[in-house]
Amino acid sequence: MFYHVKELQYDAKPSQPDPVYAKKLQEILGGQYGEMSVMMQYLFQGWNCRAEGKYRDMILDIATEEIAHVEMIATMIAQLLDGAPVHDQEQGAKDPAVEAVLGGMNPQHAIVNGLGAQPNDSVGYPWTARYTIASGNLLADFRANLNAESQGRLQVCRLYEMTTDPGVRDMLSFLIARDTMHQNQWMAAIEELEQTQGAIVPSTFNQEFEKQEVSYSFMNFSEGEESKTGRWANGPTLDGQANFEYIQNPKAMGQKPQLQPGPKFIHGTPP
Amino acid sequence: MFYHVKELQYDAKPSQPDPVYAKKLQEILGGQYGEMSVMMQYLFQGWNCRAEGKYRDMILDIATEEIAHVEMIATMIAQLLDGAPVHDQEQGAKDPAVEAVLGGMNPQHAIVNGLGAQPNDSVGYPWTARYTIASGNLLADFRANLNAESQGRLQVCRLYEMTTDPGVRDMLSFLIARDTMHQNQWMAAIEELEQTQGAIVPSTFNQEFEKQEVSYSFMNFSEGEESKTGRWANGPTLDGQANFEYIQNPKAMGQKPQLQPGPKFIHGTPP
Amino acid sequence: MFYHVKELQYDAKPSQPDPVYAKKLQEILGGQYGEMSVMMQYLFQGWNCRAEGKYRDMILDIATEEIAHVEMIATMIAQLLDGAPVHDQEQGAKDPAVEAVLGGMNPQHAIVNGLGAQPNDSVGYPWTARYTIASGNLLADFRANLNAESQGRLQVCRLYEMTTDPGVRDMLSFLIARDTMHQNQWMAAIEELEQTQGAIVPSTFNQEFEKQEVSYSFMNFSEGEESKTGRWANGPTLDGQANFEYIQNPKAMGQKPQLQPGPKFIHGTPP
Amino acid sequence: MFYHVKELQYDAKPSQPDPVYAKKLQEILGGQYGEMSVMMQYLFQGWNCRAEGKYRDMILDIATEEIAHVEMIATMIAQLLDGAPVHDQEQGAKDPAVEAVLGGMNPQHAIVNGLGAQPNDSVGYPWTARYTIASGNLLADFRANLNAESQGRLQVCRLYEMTTDPGVRDMLSFLIARDTMHQNQWMAAIEELEQTQGAIVPSTFNQEFEKQEVSYSFMNFSEGEESKTGRWANGPTLDGQANFEYIQNPKAMGQKPQLQPGPKFIHGTPP
Amino acid sequence: MFYHVKELQYDAKPSQPDPVYAKKLQEILGGQYGEMSVMMQYLFQGWNCRAEGKYRDMILDIATEEIAHVEMIATMIAQLLDGAPVHDQEQGAKDPAVEAVLGGMNPQHAIVNGLGAQPNDSVGYPWTARYTIASGNLLADFRANLNAESQGRLQVCRLYEMTTDPGVRDMLSFLIARDTMHQNQWMAAIEELEQTQGAIVPSTFNQEFEKQEVSYSFMNFSEGEESKTGRWANGPTLDGQANFEYIQNPKAMGQKPQLQPGPKFIHGTPP
Amino acid sequence: MFYHVKELQYDAKPSQPDPVYAKKLQEILGGQYGEMSVMMQYLFQGWNCRAEGKYRDMILDIATEEIAHVEMIATMIAQLLDGAPVHDQEQGAKDPAVEAVLGGMNPQHAIVNGLGAQPNDSVGYPWTARYTIASGNLLADFRANLNAESQGRLQVCRLYEMTTDPGVRDMLSFLIARDTMHQNQWMAAIEELEQTQGAIVPSTFNQEFEKQEVSYSFMNFSEGEESKTGRWANGPTLDGQANFEYIQNPKAMGQKPQLQPGPKFIHGTPP
Ligand SMILES: [Ca+2]
Ligand SMILES: [Ca+2]
Ligand SMILES: [Ca+2]
Ligand SMILES: [Ca+2]
Ligand SMILES: [Ca+2]
Ligand SMILES: [Ca+2]
Repeated sequence: MFYHVKELQYDAKPSQPDPVYAKKLQEILGGQYGEMSVMMQYLFQGWNCRAEGKYRDMILDIATEEIAHVEMIATMIAQLLDGAPVHDQEQGAKDPAVEAVLGGMNPQHAIVNGLGAQPNDSVGYPWTARYTIASGNLLADFRANLNAESQGRLQVCRLYEMTTDPGVRDMLSFLIARDTMHQNQWMAAIEELEQTQGAIVPSTFNQEFEKQEVSYSFMNFSEGEESKTGRWANGPTLDGQANFEYIQNPKAMGQKPQLQPGPKFIHGTPP
Repeated sequence: MFYHVKELQYDAKPSQPDPVYAKKLQEILGGQYGEMSVMMQYLFQGWNCRAEGKYRDMILDIATEEIAHVEMIATMIAQLLDGAPVHDQEQGAKDPAVEAVLGGMNPQHAIVNGLGAQPNDSVGYPWTARYTIASGNLLADFRANLNAESQGRLQVCRLYEMTTDPGVRDMLSFLIARDTMHQNQWMAAIEELEQTQGAIVPSTFNQEFEKQEVSYSFMNFSEGEESKTGRWANGPTLDGQANFEYIQNPKAMGQKPQLQPGPKFIHGTPP
Repeated sequence: MFYHVKELQYDAKPSQPDPVYAKKLQEILGGQYGEMSVMMQYLFQGWNCRAEGKYRDMILDIATEEIAHVEMIATMIAQLLDGAPVHDQEQGAKDPAVEAVLGGMNPQHAIVNGLGAQPNDSVGYPWTARYTIASGNLLADFRANLNAESQGRLQVCRLYEMTTDPGVRDMLSFLIARDTMHQNQWMAAIEELEQTQGAIVPSTFNQEFEKQEVSYSFMNFSEGEESKTGRWANGPTLDGQANFEYIQNPKAMGQKPQLQPGPKFIHGTPP
Repeated sequence: MFYHVKELQYDAKPSQPDPVYAKKLQEILGGQYGEMSVMMQYLFQGWNCRAEGKYRDMILDIATEEIAHVEMIATMIAQLLDGAPVHDQEQGAKDPAVEAVLGGMNPQHAIVNGLGAQPNDSVGYPWTARYTIASGNLLADFRANLNAESQGRLQVCRLYEMTTDPGVRDMLSFLIARDTMHQNQWMAAIEELEQTQGAIVPSTFNQEFEKQEVSYSFMNFSEGEESKTGRWANGPTLDGQANFEYIQNPKAMGQKPQLQPGPKFIHGTPP
Repeated sequence: MFYHVKELQYDAKPSQPDPVYAKKLQEILGGQYGEMSVMMQYLFQGWNCRAEGKYRDMILDIATEEIAHVEMIATMIAQLLDGAPVHDQEQGAKDPAVEAVLGGMNPQHAIVNGLGAQPNDSVGYPWTARYTIASGNLLADFRANLNAESQGRLQVCRLYEMTTDPGVRDMLSFLIARDTMHQNQWMAAIEELEQTQGAIVPSTFNQEFEKQEVSYSFMNFSEGEESKTGRWANGPTLDGQANFEYIQNPKAMGQKPQLQPGPKFIHGTPP
Repeated sequence: MFYHVKELQYDAKPSQPDPVYAKKLQEILGGQYGEMSVMMQYLFQGWNCRAEGKYRDMILDIATEEIAHVEMIATMIAQLLDGAPVHDQEQGAKDPAVEAVLGGMNPQHAIVNGLGAQPNDSVGYPWTARYTIASGNLLADFRANLNAESQGRLQVCRLYEMTTDPGVRDMLSFLIARDTMHQNQWMAAIEELEQTQGAIVPSTFNQEFEKQEVSYSFMNFSEGEESKTGRWANGPTLDGQANFEYIQNPKAMGQKPQLQPGPKFIHGTPP
């Protein structure tokens, strides 16, 4: 169960309206790697958690914080939309600068949301649950989380570069710092799990049942062998089980497929 | 540019038809973490790659292999659908066993695809490009790739447990082995990049501009302190810059939001 | 079965082309609360109607009118797109005013639709059937309809404010008037149903089977008690069964969840 | 900002596993009118709220409660999935009863989520933000909310009829009761707003600018006149401004559309 | 503008309920090539039509018929759902035959639609406007229409084979006949346009501006030359301008791509 | 299985950056009729092919070429994005020309993709597998393919008109030429199949089972009879079986639908 307090986790106070920037900021609210994604991903990982208690508690701690991040950005967007020039004064004499703002705005911010934030990304695409994963395997999921915090911090940093508004930058500097923490946090949790389980997900699958002759081979399927010089083609594998092998000319090992004709009632192409 | 050879990378020969399993197998073909996702993700990462040549070559090597994985699974599904009991012989006397098969099949396998594979997941949801990321930052993207190979191998292992068909298991054992390699590969590439760039994405953002007092704090937003005992709350942070700090009662640091009334032409709720 | 007449229900004649406005107008054609939504929602409610005949007839009357509204707006958009400056005359000397128009247009209006309307909203997101509901319970559905006509009229009014073209405003004034009628219509139908069925949907569920001690309690889950002063926390409930009660400090009434470890073949995190 | 407590708002304890029912229960978790929809709809309405303080507080009170409802149902689903028969013991001798369970389950519950809940509906379609609205006009939005609580209670009642498990029914009886309250709550809030603003959304649009001769006419666009006998065609309109009028044979009032040929560079059909 | 008559275009009377078949039948109602697709595709093509009047009239004739087809199938589905066994009588003694029906049904037919049709396909995926095209070039669009009627008739024939209910088959026999006509109709319209415009869409693009040396070459990008024996590699091209040429070993004609490093503020991988 | 070579199939070298055009060019990369659609459509048609070998080989030849087309356009887009003005130098003095570029760009090109291509269309909508079809009936599918190449060439021609950059036009002239070939190719394959199978898909359905009295009738469902003068209403039908008939006043042939009341446990509107 949850409780709400009225104060934001950190200030969300723009120095001035900027409806074009409001459109861009939607990316980290409702985009693929926005705050709604981590919020919902962590909530479901926590609620589904079947592992020991410290994991569930930790995941729900951060999940609960992420709701507050969505709240901050939504609040910021609503204020950036104040004064958007969406009311047409008169036909004719149009100011190119105003027209450029109108062209750069998300029209739904005015028409649909009445100058409020929306749960969508920077091109207006709605947030979808397919952005998230809760697999029941924490090592897999913590890698998803580390990726999400990496893509997320990258996007916030790019947005930081795209404005000079000190109020917006102040809020972003907070989000960037929290993403620094959250990358550290998931790396720490991953390290802990890898030490007990091993590095390959899932660690519980009996490796005798995999086709082990191709478990450590880098296959060069494209012309040119620059790929031979990377860490992934040399030295011990990261799971500590073998050494990387470089296959210069990988060969097909399977059959030439030949499908049977379909039955008559399927009305495929007749033989 | 690409060339195709007719043989599959590895055998895809079921021992007998199984249209219900064909539906399940769609998950690793066209699902969120299926082969189509890694194929398209790696292709776009390779084509967009602005880093040194060995990365582009390596990414396109694996991308090209993934197209062959999609091909193998599609071929397997088409054969598993042979003999699906979709032709209604007569109204009335229905065999519960046959009805259970019909209930467990994807009806589109017959109606839409004429007993062929489809680019969808195990509930028939179509593959979407929002499953993929190519951010221009390789460390971020390699974490996405490591996650994809972790979720992917987990799903293939689960599917391995859900059948006893030796032909299907043979193909899955190959895919599981390649996922072992690919997890190792991305871990190796990540290690290489972290050593030169540092562990926090993006490494090029000036850390002075982030709100550093919250960069290393674990915040306990949920009741109970089990989360205090994890690696994420104790010892040096993984980026080597500080020590984790545990905040027992995190406090709001921001304003109580109060939005201005909207302008008249927006026709929001009147004040 | 349906018949078509060539004349529009009302004039759709813009005074001059305006391709940027054409993009915005798509919202009320193919948006969440656009005319396609009410058209399809009412058609399915009518076709599925199991209640007495006057409801089916009424619903199909308005459904049929809505097809004509889609037609009017599509016709308007095609004309607003006449003369869109999408042909690049020469590299170099670009007019900022023209560029602003190009930036503000939907590029698909030219590339995909050849200066025609599309069944999408103002950010180009395609109309989807998940915008609609036909539940088989008319009181529930008429509330959906009243909401749709309320959101719809709000959006048309906002679009009215965003243009000064007298031809466009003339058509919008017709749509606004019809939405006035349709809000009245659904309120009237709701009033009729509530009088015979009661106000709570579904009225046929035996209220003894609901946890009645929380059926009339407003729970204050957020800090601060401004919410105490509203009608929803004072006086008789709207279904006439009780009085509103205000719970200042709502408490958890449920268990602390503890999930069992998953079975081995699921390959979740090992205990 | 938010805080989490570990106890659920109400018990979520099934009497026994039922993976087929788990699939169905997803509808009220991640469906069009599930708890995720009201949770996100109310959160955004609260964050965007520009009206007086009691509304914002009230909306966030209920939004915060809804997060707890999502939590309860997710917890219930995870438990219903315990013991799902997804591990294939041996090829051949299949039990029709077990096969029927497998056919009726959502395969992703095992393959993707490892026996956990997912943020999707009962056919596996992912939750999308287009299910929600926050328009900036509270009367419009409260009608959306009343509709959501009506559709939602209807669906929970139907799910109540589809099980006899006393633990599941106990939880549903709580949710049904809260939906009774929430329907009452939104009706109360609507009543309050209608009394000050009038019944037509938006109330601030100058009615002189709408085409008033069609503002109160019911138009009979389908054969047969059963629709004449409803409240929507007789007596005073619900906004108190006029009387309903019934138009037996509505006529087209607009032009016969004739579009100009497209410009040459569009490569439409040549004239 | 449109009018509705109450009689269906053709009888839709099942001989008995069949909720599993109702799920399958959704494919031709709300699927990619279902009746909603042709209805909306033809309506938009008609409304956007800038060509001579006989085309617009013809397109709207068939569009209007398609609304009636949607109506017939929706009516059929609602009747097939009568008597669906969705009410759980008692826990425990489950009949495998009934369970198979429940497993094969779409759960939303009961939970969401109250035993009515829904605007979705046979796996419950909602109809989306991206299924349709109205390009402004009639030859292109008539090819889309011919494809839609071909895929559509194929699916209806498959559904015909999947039932033995004489009432359902009677309705399908009508739809199959209309699809015969509609394939003929679009072929006739295509023939007419090809005779005046030529066969390549768009016919108005100056062929001097295309890279003509590759305009008639079949390129053998896959191992093996079975493809050499088809009509597409031999004889005159269908546009009558040249002869097909078979390129046994197509060579890359382009550059080896090398992208510039990104600017610093993009925070891509550092060089 | 596939191999990659580093050279592009044809040059993709813009003369100068143009981030606004990059957004538009996305349409033919990840749009409904972009290169990703034909690539995936042909791959699945080839993999699922149950017909004689020359078809499978031919389909996979062209499928493999299409991957190279996606590669060329992705490479072009990445270069067009070089130098995009997304870094905000200072608040205040904004250049309208630069602002127009920013308004016309896709913000995700910078925020999400770091100046790289994305698998989306020109409004940022992600590519989805529902754009493709592989039905198992080659005549049906080749009509889908002819349509795709027709819509595709039309869109490329429109994009050709929207730029004057000689490098971009050079690449487009290659794609236009290949689409000329591919339209010819599918027309040739269709001609071959129609000669052996007949023109109506599927040709294997016994025509006695269709309602033959409406198999060749054009029905005039809209007012006005301009549609009478087309080829579709006069002369022999294209399948050579009959003559077209024109029905001036098509009549309803079906029942007036009357649905039974729903069962009590569905909680629909009470009778
Ligand atoms: Ca290579
Ligand atoms: Ca805690
Ligand atoms: Ca409160
Ligand atoms: Ca009527
Ligand atoms: Ca070949
Ligand atoms: Ca006509």
